[in-house]
Order: sequence, then structure tokens, then C-alpha cells
Amino acid sequence: MSDRTPAIDYAKSHSDAFLESLNDLLRIPSISTLPENEPDMAKAAEWLAERMRNLGFSAVEIIPTKRHPVVYAEHMEAGPDAPTILVYGHYDVQPADPLDLWETDPFEPTVRGDDLFARGASDMKGQIVAHLMAVESMINTSGLPVNLKYMVEGEEEIGSPNMEAFIEQHKDKLACDVCLNADAGILAADTPAITYGLRGLAYFEIRLQGADRDLHSGRFGGTVPNPGNALAKLIAGMHDEQGRVTLPGFYTRVRPLSDEERDELAKLPEDEAWWKAQSGSDVLTGEIGYTPTERASARPTLDVNGLLCGFTGEGSKTVLPAKAMAKISMRLVPDQTSAETETSLRQYLEENMPAGISWELINHAGGEPSLIDVDSPAVKAASKAFLQTWGKAPLFDREGGSVPVVGIIQKRLGVGSLMLGYGLPDDNLHAPNEKLHLPNYFRGIETYIHFTHEMAE
Amino acid sequence: MSDRTPAIDYAKSHSDAFLESLNDLLRIPSISTLPENEPDMAKAAEWLAERMRNLGFSAVEIIPTKRHPVVYAEHMEAGPDAPTILVYGHYDVQPADPLDLWETDPFEPTVRGDDLFARGASDMKGQIVAHLMAVESMINTSGLPVNLKYMVEGEEEIGSPNMEAFIEQHKDKLACDVCLNADAGILAADTPAITYGLRGLAYFEIRLQGADRDLHSGRFGGTVPNPGNALAKLIAGMHDEQGRVTLPGFYTRVRPLSDEERDELAKLPEDEAWWKAQSGSDVLTGEIGYTPTERASARPTLDVNGLLCGFTGEGSKTVLPAKAMAKISMRLVPDQTSAETETSLRQYLEENMPAGISWELINHAGGEPSLIDVDSPAVKAASKAFLQTWGKAPLFDREGGSVPVVGIIQKRLGVGSLMLGYGLPDDNLHAPNEKLHLPNYFRGIETYIHFTHEMAE
Repeated sequence: MSDRTPAIDYAKSHSDAFLESLNDLLRIPSISTLPENEPDMAKAAEWLAERMRNLGFSAVEIIPTKRHPVVYAEHMEAGPDAPTILVYGHYDVQPADPLDLWETDPFEPTVRGDDLFARGASDMKGQIVAHLMAVESMINTSGLPVNLKYMVEGEEEIGSPNMEAFIEQHKDKLACDVCLNADAGILAADTPAITYGLRGLAYFEIRLQGADRDLHSGRFGGTVPNPGNALAKLIAGMHDEQGRVTLPGFYTRVRPLSDEERDELAKLPEDEAWWKAQSGSDVLTGEIGYTPTERASARPTLDVNGLLCGFTGEGSKTVLPAKAMAKISMRLVPDQTSAETETSLRQYLEENMPAGISWELINHAGGEPSLIDVDSPAVKAASKAFLQTWGKAPLFDREGGSVPVVGIIQKRLGVGSLMLGYGLPDDNLHAPNEKLHLPNYFRGIETYIHFTHEMAE
Repeated sequence: MSDRTPAIDYAKSHSDAFLESLNDLLRIPSISTLPENEPDMAKAAEWLAERMRNLGFSAVEIIPTKRHPVVYAEHMEAGPDAPTILVYGHYDVQPADPLDLWETDPFEPTVRGDDLFARGASDMKGQIVAHLMAVESMINTSGLPVNLKYMVEGEEEIGSPNMEAFIEQHKDKLACDVCLNADAGILAADTPAITYGLRGLAYFEIRLQGADRDLHSGRFGGTVPNPGNALAKLIAGMHDEQGRVTLPGFYTRVRPLSDEERDELAKLPEDEAWWKAQSGSDVLTGEIGYTPTERASARPTLDVNGLLCGFTGEGSKTVLPAKAMAKISMRLVPDQTSAETETSLRQYLEENMPAGISWELINHAGGEPSLIDVDSPAVKAASKAFLQTWGKAPLFDREGGSVPVVGIIQKRLGVGSLMLGYGLPDDNLHAPNEKLHLPNYFRGIETYIHFTHEMAE
């Protein structure tokens, strides 16, 4: 076992400085979506680059993209036999409005109780700075036992529009054994967890057209195709009575859940009452034969996100509409792909479109699902690191949402991503009074130190 | 046969004056929906009352309603053995905008070729003045052989909001043997027709609610009810594979089409190509086993008029919507009623609503279907009148749209309505360059004279 004690001791004795470092970055309002914050974006990137340079990282670069730059740095002194870890994070934050709902200035970090309140505290400056502080603790004591590359982007909160091109362009530079995605969280302050799976996304718009103009429903009702009715029939046919999606081939590449995995997921503190409370729905639905947790994270789904057709104002208008539109999205699980899902949907529409309806299918967004092997070295290392820091083994969790960069890294770099961060479900992400649970910030730094050393074993 | 020749001769020799009379009324911009035209509404009502007074009508009244008054007049000198006819019409018109699309001033009637262009020329000042000129022709020659009551309202173009209350309040005064509804048309300039059936209307809004707030489709997709999907399933289930409406009891009171009636309807110049051209749809659909004409006029239907749910802007938003709304209307045929239709729909929703969806059903509008017996004296009289004027027997037509006042008169006064007017399908009703085919105006006057005398036979 490599000697991690000096680094842990260093971290414990530098907690004040580590909090100050985080506060420094939190004071920079690096809101990626607002043009007026462009200088702050540059300032935040420079802040990170400067810290990395001071720690002796080589090749520290602020690499431009079409909008906000990526901070890249590497520390390759552990030698060719040590693993190389690519750490992903982002230095941009969401806008802070509505400002009047914040109890204190979103860009003046403030401690109240155990929490540090600031925009970006949890999502995710708190996570990326925790990692940087762990690295500082190691470099300034017994050294960094792995090779490390940082890729910290400035566009996550605006959908990472340039990330795929960036990774493709720099794929040699980014080569690694595994990615550590620090934009992650755990289930509760005292419940460490590792998210080993993420769902993908395929988001479409279906546009139907019947007659070439809106018609009077009295004069023509009963003779011509109604795209509103046609749309309803198409959407209704997308599920069967078991709550399964009927698109041809939709389940062909879905990896079945093993009994072991189901047993692990059943350990999560997410019973039916929890799901009802979280969702505000008195009734839980979905695919028959699976628990709510499985349905929301480990099984693919299809949902209407929007519908628009004909007259939607107050009262009545007897229009037989010419057009109807639906936004439909699917959450995907390995080994489904967003491209194959489009093929399935297109085939379904071709086979089921009523006569007299012309149609168009628009692909608005796609992201690939991902899983990291729970028996992989990275997951095992993280698991041990949690046990050492929190005193208990982490739960194993899959997430229902999508993290497109994970799919991109899998596709372009050929490596999985370990989601390892310490955000909490009630951290008010993207909302007023975003906070970071400070004990987790410090435990997180220690966990990153343990994880790094476990990876080097 | 009573002597109608003097009246016909009178009409022929007064065509210039009859056109001038119509022009007088067309110059008054009696737009019921615009507050600034309120004085014009009063002026138009007074114009009609004045003409009726001059013709010796008794009890000429301008009876106030909550908004625009009804012109009422009666001429009861034919005696108790003669039939009493209630003539229904309206003196209000649609707004004229967009004004820049009119070739000439909408309120300065202008003859071009065979047509008279003005707002209200066909809908329906041209029809009600034609009747008045027919009455003048009779009164000023051999006399009026029937008892006549006029009920000319000023709110048809805003949905006749006060008509049912008015008719109920004045039902003794309005007592009659039959109603002549002059707000009607024929199939083509040389194709006289009698509309003996009208569909009713039942118009609803269905509002669904799933969870108590919009949710993230990644986090919750697959676990909670989606009201958008639920709405699609409900609407899809409202039709079976034969294109029939599945609401319980929906067809119970539908009068079947007799072979004779189907033979008559088949004579209408409305083949599939005609319906395709009229609707702008390449494909005709609907209930299996019926022709397009039957489906659009003599069979009940159900259509989506509007849909709204979730995100409908550009691009994608991964929302799992809390609410979904549909506007759904049904066209009814005798002896369906709008009230029973609501019961059917409510029962369907109760029986088919997915778990976890709360719902609300709003009744926006209703109107009863109607049929007048084609063997009744009024239809026979109209048929002969057309034959005498046009030189050919009329076709027998049912209309797909609804004329609520016909249902109200049936319900409140217990009499059927004969639709007898001369508007043409291409008269640009409610549109710029509304016109009246002048030869039909004069033939219409003669037809009313013949009809009146046939009724007195």
C-alpha cells in the first residue's frame, strides 16, 4: 500500500485554506449562458490553470472552443506503469436568478450551519476544487501515484455544444485508462453511493399534416384525416398493456438486469413511498415487472414531452386542424443507441401512419447510455475509498438522467467514466440558495486521495 | 291555385328597386361584434322595422336583448285556417377585415358581372331582403295568403347568445306551424337544393393532471403517469378500427339512414373527387360503409380540435408534463342530444382513465341536430317553388354543420325549420369580397312567392 497518510494529514491541516480556495473560485460569476459574463468565464478558467501550474502540472493549456475554453492540464510523473486518469469537470455555472430568492449573495459564498451557500457550490466548483485540493495534498507530500489529466469545460450548463468535437480533435492527448467524472453526487450526507450507470436520451419531434389547410369541423368532420386524432393513435400505440415500448427492435440491445444487480438496486433507500414523495404523484406507473427504481434508471422509457394541435385558446373553435405536433423522448439504457432508436421510431411511424397524413421526424437531441463495470478497478477503488472515509461501503446506483459527455468519452476515447462526486439531492442545483454540505467537501477531498492511491495499488 | 301571377309580375317589374332596397341595408355596417358599430346595429334594425311597418305589418317591434335587439313583426290577415310561418333571419354581419383584400368598399355594394359585392350580401341580408321583397310583391298585388311572423336577430355572427332565452320568453308570440330559416344556400347557381338536415354539436375540453408539478423526464420517466401519453391513449380509444365512435351509447339514438335517403344523397354532385378538391385532402377517411357525403352530413363524428401539453417551443426540453388538454367535439345527428353525448363521454372517461390521472371535463358548446320531414308540407312547397322558378326539382341535402337556432326552435316552439335561402358555396362568407349572385337574388324572390302560395294551397 502506497503511503497516503501524509496527504490525508495535509488535507486535514489545510481545511481553512481549502475552503478559501473554493470561495475564491465561487466568487467568480462564471455564468456560461450570459454574454456579459464572458470575462468571468476567462477569469475562472485562468484561476484553475494557475492553480494547476502552481502544482507543477505540465502542459497547462486554456484551449479555445467556439465559445468558452477548456482548461487542460496533465501531470504524468507516475510513469508508464501507473494508470492514467482523465478528470472531467466544468467551471461554468447556471445563472443565479431569481436573485430575490437568495438569502445571501450567490457570488459571495456564505457559511450557514454545515452548508456553504453560493451558485456553483455543489454544481460543481465544490467537486472539482475538492479534487484539486486532493491533488495538492498528494503532490505536496508523498507525490501523485497516478498520471492525471484534467479536462474542465466551460459549457456544461449550456449543453456542452463543443465537447464532442473537442474530444475528437484532442483524442490522442486525452488518452487514458479511465475517466473520473466529478460532476456527480451521493444519495445523502451519510449515504455514499457510486453511480455506475446513466441513461441515454433520444429526443424527437413528430409533425403531422392532414389536409392542406384547417377545415370547418362541421362541414368536413368525418371525411378527412384529422392529424390530432392520428397523433393520439400513434402515441397510444407506442406502449403495450405491459407498459413496454412497442417500437420495432426497441429492446433488442437492452442489457437485461441480472438478479445480482436487482438485489443491489433494491438496497437503495428508494421505496414506493419515497418515489411518490419525490415525484408528487400518488400513483406510480410504468413497465410491469420492475420496481420504480429499476424503471426510472435501468429500463428504457418513452414519454410525451409536448403536444400542440389546432385551437388551444379559451372556449371553442370548431376547427378540424391541418397540423399536429408531438415532442417525444426516450431514455435509453446500454446497449441501445440514439441512432438505432431513431431507426426504430421511423419504422414504427412508417408502419403505422394513417392514410392521408404526411409526416416529418426531427431529431432534436441524442446522448448515449453508459455503464461502468462494477467489478472494474476504478469502481473497486472508489468503493474502498468511500469505506475508508465514510466508514461504510457505498451503495450502487444507476441514474435515470443523461450525461452526454460520458457517452461521448466512451465513444471517442473508448473508456468508461466513474461518476465520483459528493453533491446531495437537496443541494438546490440550478435553483436559488444552492449549497454544498461542507463536511462532504472535506470527506470528498479525503475520498479522492484514497481513490487515487487505490488506483495506484 | 291562388293567383300568384300578379306578385311574380310585380317582382319582375321592380327588380331595380329591389336591388336598391338591398343596397340600402348593405350600406349599414351592422357588425355585431364591434362596440363602435352599435349605432349601425340600431340603424339596421330600424331599417327592417320601417319596411315592415310600411308593408302594413302589425305589431312591429324592436325587442331589446342583453346586447342587440331582435326585429319582430307579424302579418296575420290570412286568417285562422291559413298556415302561420315564422321567418328567421339576422341583420348582423361579420367584420370586414382584412380590408386591404377587398376589391371595393365592403359597405358600398358594387356590381361586377352577375355579382353584387358587399359584406352581408349573401350572409344574409340578401336572403332576408329577398324574402321581404317577395312579401312586398304579394301584399302590393293579390295579398299575402299565409300568416307571417318575422324574427330577425342581431347576434347570429356572435353565436346567438341570447336567442334561446328570447324564444323561450316569447314562445306564445312566436307560435307557428313551421319556421322558414332563410340563412341558407343551394349547391350551385343552377342547382337548387333543400337542406333538410343539420348536425348538432357537442364541444368539450378534457383536462388531465398527473403529478402535481412538471418533472424531469430523466429522473422520473418510467415511474409516474404522463398525462400526455394518457390523453393520447384516451383519444385513440374513442374510435374503433371501423372508424366508429366507441363512447358508450353514442349510437343508441342515431336514426339509421334509409335506402331511399341514401339514394337521394347519392344524387348530390359530391363524389370523392369533389370532396378531395373541397377539403384539400388527397385521402378521404371516416366510418366504414358510408359515402363521404353521408359521413360528413348524416353520420355522427368525433374530432380533435386542439391539443396542448408540456413543452411546445423550438427544440427540446426534457419535461415530463404535469398537465395535458384536448378540445374534442362531436357532430351529432337525430336523435342524439348534446346532453346525452356529455354523459357518454363522461362514462368513457370514467371507465378508461389511467390510474394516477385526475381529470376535468368542460362543456363549451352544444347544439341539437335537426331533420325536417321531406314529406312535410313545407318541404313539398319549397320543392315545387324551386321547380317553378329554376325549372328543375331541388336536390335534397343534409348539412354537416350546426345551426343552433334550428335546434332551439325545435325544442322551444316544437316546430321544424325549413332551410330556404340562395347563398352559394363560393360566396366568400366571412371573407373578403363577399358576394351575392344577383340572378339568384331575383329567382330567390320569385321562389319565396311560389313557396308562400304553395303553403297556402
